[in-house]
Amino acid sequence: MTPLVLGPTAIERAAAPELVLAAVRDALIAHARGRTTVPPPLHLQFPEAGGDCHVKAGWVTDASDFTVKIATGFYRNPAAGLPTNHGLVCVVSARTGGIRAILDDGGLITARRTAAAGALVTHAMARPDAATLAVFGTGEQARLQVEWLARLRPLDTVLVHGRSQEKARTLCGQFDALGLHARPAPAGEAAAADMVITTTPATAPVLRAGDIRAGAHVTGVGTDMPHKNELPPALFARAALIATDDHQQCLDHGDFGRAVRAGATADSSDTPVGLLLERPVERPDGAITVADLTGVGALDAALASAVLRALAP
Amino acid sequence: MTPLVLGPTAIERAAAPELVLAAVRDALIAHARGRTTVPPPLHLQFPEAGGDCHVKAGWVTDASDFTVKIATGFYRNPAAGLPTNHGLVCVVSARTGGIRAILDDGGLITARRTAAAGALVTHAMARPDAATLAVFGTGEQARLQVEWLARLRPLDTVLVHGRSQEKARTLCGQFDALGLHARPAPAGEAAAADMVITTTPATAPVLRAGDIRAGAHVTGVGTDMPHKNELPPALFARAALIATDDHQQCLDHGDFGRAVRAGATADSSDTPVGLLLERPVERPDGAITVADLTGVGALDAALASAVLRALAP
Repeated sequence: MTPLVLGPTAIERAAAPELVLAAVRDALIAHARGRTTVPPPLHLQFPEAGGDCHVKAGWVTDASDFTVKIATGFYRNPAAGLPTNHGLVCVVSARTGGIRAILDDGGLITARRTAAAGALVTHAMARPDAATLAVFGTGEQARLQVEWLARLRPLDTVLVHGRSQEKARTLCGQFDALGLHARPAPAGEAAAADMVITTTPATAPVLRAGDIRAGAHVTGVGTDMPHKNELPPALFARAALIATDDHQQCLDHGDFGRAVRAGATADSSDTPVGLLLERPVERPDGAITVADLTGVGALDAALASAVLRALAP
Repeated sequence: MTPLVLGPTAIERAAAPELVLAAVRDALIAHARGRTTVPPPLHLQFPEAGGDCHVKAGWVTDASDFTVKIATGFYRNPAAGLPTNHGLVCVVSARTGGIRAILDDGGLITARRTAAAGALVTHAMARPDAATLAVFGTGEQARLQVEWLARLRPLDTVLVHGRSQEKARTLCGQFDALGLHARPAPAGEAAAADMVITTTPATAPVLRAGDIRAGAHVTGVGTDMPHKNELPPALFARAALIATDDHQQCLDHGDFGRAVRAGATADSSDTPVGLLLERPVERPDGAITVADLTGVGALDAALASAVLRALAP
């Protein structure tokens, strides 16, 4: 039997915000509760072509499916008119091992599970009255994080900080079209927002810990490899509450691990983000909170399975 | 662009013996020469369903494609009338990261690369005049190892040793139909053949080292996980030449590693099998030789690429 191949149009239609937010929330809670299987990812490097490949697998315990996700990034592709990223998600039965479907999703599942995780965690950890949001970065995740958080709470002002003024202005234009009040901002001003989300591929901190205000919340979603770094160790030293999407993974290659190795916080100072989604977070007035999200394979599994259920019940 | 999906019929037609033997020989040599990239595999276990999933990737350095292979084994499937194994091989461009094709091969690529590797190595390491072959096991690999070795050299007699007499007789009938003289044999008699190939999922040795004759060659292809074991440590102690398809992998979960841990041989006593395919093997009269093959992802890559080139040039 030829495996079912689902294309990006069908997947995008199925991966509506309500479905994605519910699947990602449940998967983050399951992961925090130890009810997932997420083996260490497999990596391949292609130095001559400037490329890499990551294979991540994940299973929410007792779910009927698990997934294997293949994702490539070849960073010289744009010069040849090709997209940087390619990949697919393979949905496999956890009952029989049969290949249920191949989701030819153009990276949509990763993008939306990352957006949903960032928005859910930022919404859960920020003060209920926090209304100014700053985003660092001007790429797809910068746009999605803002759009998805705006689904969860009202946003008075959106500040966009990017290395390219032009890209920051373009993104602000897109936010304005959604009815959000957005403008480009320098790093210091952006870091002083009620809520800060960093979405860059930076290899050194994009903000200064001293610029974060008392009572603010910061979520980092960009650091997913050992050489990357968005949030400074000093921010973790100031934080009253630190949350990670996967303790070991964030220690290995997240901003949290970098802060632990710098001596800015203890390696047991973090709380699984999933636990913070179950009930309202108790945060002292003036506390700074930080979330380090490195991306968990169980979210791919949960979202891909939900999409497949919607498309081929 | 929807990925190209190739089915088992087309793949089987393309994976003709000449193509497979050439691709596997080249890949074993490249691997021995350090010209491959084979990251540690990714594993998932499904204890309640009695299943597991292995993801292996491989690249022959400078080849235009690499592969990611997903393989599942759910051992209670036959009771439900389903095949035990499922999987696919994804061929990815090593130039752009684009998904070139999905080979829905029903395990054929793994089966044929394993058969080709076993036959090539056995043929290269055995005495030129060795003509009696014993195979331990009665499954698909038992059949393939004999058939493929028979392509490389004449076989006077084939002895089949299996736990099931009935399966051993059925397999002998299939060999007879190919013009081979085959008969079931007890373990002691089978172990005394000129060439011995073990193809079982055994977890304890299937033969006694003392039954192997001076001048004989033994190839093990069944041990691919830490809990499996086909060849006894004492056989490695008797061997004048030990070959492995991947030093680290055979140390980790091959019969070679078990022999090293038992103190029967040194952990530096092995030679990469690929080096033995480049020129005739010099073996003293009466020497016993052993090959431990655990399966290398670079072979999947080489064979899948060759199949894709044949089908979609």
